[in-house]
Amino acid sequence: MTHTSIRFGIIGCADIARKVSRAILLAPNATLSAVASRSLHKAADFAKSNGFPPEAKIYGSYESLLDDPDIDAVYMPLPTTLHLKWAVLIAQKKKHLLTEKPVALNVAEFDEIVRACEENGVQIMDGTMWMHHPRTHKMKEFLQDKQRFGQLKTVNSCFTFFTDPDFLKNDIRVKPDLDALGALGDAGWYGIRSILWAADYELPKTVTALQGAWEDGKKATFHCSFLTSLTMSITAIGTHGTLHLTDFVIPYQEQEASYTASAKAGFNELVTGWKPLPSEHTVTVDLPQEVCMVREFATLVQNIKKKGAKPDMKWPTISRKTQLVLDAVKASIEKGFEPVEIVN
Amino acid sequence: MTHTSIRFGIIGCADIARKVSRAILLAPNATLSAVASRSLHKAADFAKSNGFPPEAKIYGSYESLLDDPDIDAVYMPLPTTLHLKWAVLIAQKKKHLLTEKPVALNVAEFDEIVRACEENGVQIMDGTMWMHHPRTHKMKEFLQDKQRFGQLKTVNSCFTFFTDPDFLKNDIRVKPDLDALGALGDAGWYGIRSILWAADYELPKTVTALQGAWEDGKKATFHCSFLTSLTMSITAIGTHGTLHLTDFVIPYQEQEASYTASAKAGFNELVTGWKPLPSEHTVTVDLPQEVCMVREFATLVQNIKKKGAKPDMKWPTISRKTQLVLDAVKASIEKGFEPVEIVN
Repeated sequence: MTHTSIRFGIIGCADIARKVSRAILLAPNATLSAVASRSLHKAADFAKSNGFPPEAKIYGSYESLLDDPDIDAVYMPLPTTLHLKWAVLIAQKKKHLLTEKPVALNVAEFDEIVRACEENGVQIMDGTMWMHHPRTHKMKEFLQDKQRFGQLKTVNSCFTFFTDPDFLKNDIRVKPDLDALGALGDAGWYGIRSILWAADYELPKTVTALQGAWEDGKKATFHCSFLTSLTMSITAIGTHGTLHLTDFVIPYQEQEASYTASAKAGFNELVTGWKPLPSEHTVTVDLPQEVCMVREFATLVQNIKKKGAKPDMKWPTISRKTQLVLDAVKASIEKGFEPVEIVN
Repeated sequence: MTHTSIRFGIIGCADIARKVSRAILLAPNATLSAVASRSLHKAADFAKSNGFPPEAKIYGSYESLLDDPDIDAVYMPLPTTLHLKWAVLIAQKKKHLLTEKPVALNVAEFDEIVRACEENGVQIMDGTMWMHHPRTHKMKEFLQDKQRFGQLKTVNSCFTFFTDPDFLKNDIRVKPDLDALGALGDAGWYGIRSILWAADYELPKTVTALQGAWEDGKKATFHCSFLTSLTMSITAIGTHGTLHLTDFVIPYQEQEASYTASAKAGFNELVTGWKPLPSEHTVTVDLPQEVCMVREFATLVQNIKKKGAKPDMKWPTISRKTQLVLDAVKASIEKGFEPVEIVN
């Protein structure tokens, strides 16, 4: 296998390179052949702690690895700001390029990189791993099923993770001179890709960034239609936890209803997985939700009739706020999709 | 129980009134006492087919039901355009009001209705059933858990359903003179309510309606952050089917990964439930997704090295489109959240 297998060199010892080293070791047609760091010592440590074969080469500079004639392809987990320089050099050295995302700081840089690859006849691919999961292909079959899925109308995608103070201080993804695109270039790359994936890579005509809708920067979106498949989902994301459910308006069943809660979850850097896994919670129901509603209303009326209470303002207040936002959405549509201030 | 129980009259025989009739029958503190329709015959039919007790009264006009001194509360499933007139009259007749949503065509009308209820000391509540499900309270406990959920940052909510040609031609919800707010007033009411619910009813400062991003009216949103709980969800909605998954970037486990597909689902009008239920699909994995990625890349490189193939443009083309959209999002932020055209 080694004979026909593609020999990889890695430039840079980022955390993500550990996962990709393992992937190169496990791939049937790839060989882990070399690693380079600006420090020879760091490169040697990386090779040792990531299961590199004994014959793998250790380099103290990226250039020396690129000059090695026994390397076919380079995996580049460098900060985005360095991509243009190194990607072009990798191509000029006739090495194929597997690069971390975002590929570049902008499309102009991207096009320079791809031009260099084309001119030198080398392959380029970005490292968006989930695109290659067998599940992704199965899901695509469903989205392409005209009978079962029909025509795509809406996509919502979220990718967020909570980082520790050390990340927010030191990670390259928050350094404007290293990964200048920050969360947009990192987590946002996945969101954009997932939308394009679902839309068969048809580019949207217009793109609009969304401002925080609340003073504290909170954001929310909703989608409603009479023209698309029955869907009733809420994803609510907090600093530490996430709530998911997919049947909020009318539960799947009358006797019980479930939701998923995830709290302080993290993902593994090396082996695919989450820790802890989200927990599923099932609530058993004595009475259907509409009966709970009638019971609640009748109780409030009983309080008025029997106890001389005043009408309770909780529910009308909630209704009114709903109506206020609804009015504002309508006004925004009528004003050509301009932001509308909520005046209470 | 009947003695202290709240006696309900229903004005109008809409489909949703069947579900609420059943709820009134099942509620421990409510009695189904009367139904009115503009046609006495229709009212009698409705009472008969919805299990009304033999002593329930049948009225051929809404007014006559409102004049009945043995009715405490009225459930109003009328078209929204008629709400103001009838809600005010119901309040003036000292009947408590359970009304279908949207409560009114706009906040000005809403306030007139609530003023009438206040002046007459009657309770008003809108019929948003899921608010009263025990699950909703359990989920709220999670959202309010500062340790596990933290501070709310983002909500996405979808409520859509696919309707048949008959609905699109004849249902009151597509008639501007009956339910003038259409899908926004019906399905949108739930989306807005779910966002306010998650945000503890704190009103947003600004609201912006979103235009279709693609020529065919498709829309998509994504959210990315380094400051919120680990979340990786895609909801893709087609005319007939819906795809949900909550671990698209990094699956929960390395050995298998799942998603949920729903096709041509409907919900019951009477008993809570979906038909058919969404199906869960689990894909078993031979190699982790990053190994599949390396294998795919190495295969493309092998094609070039061994077979003299040209570099494959599939992946760079997908990368470039991702970068193009990313550039446009960044440009939109820099332009103060204006729409930005994608120029390819």
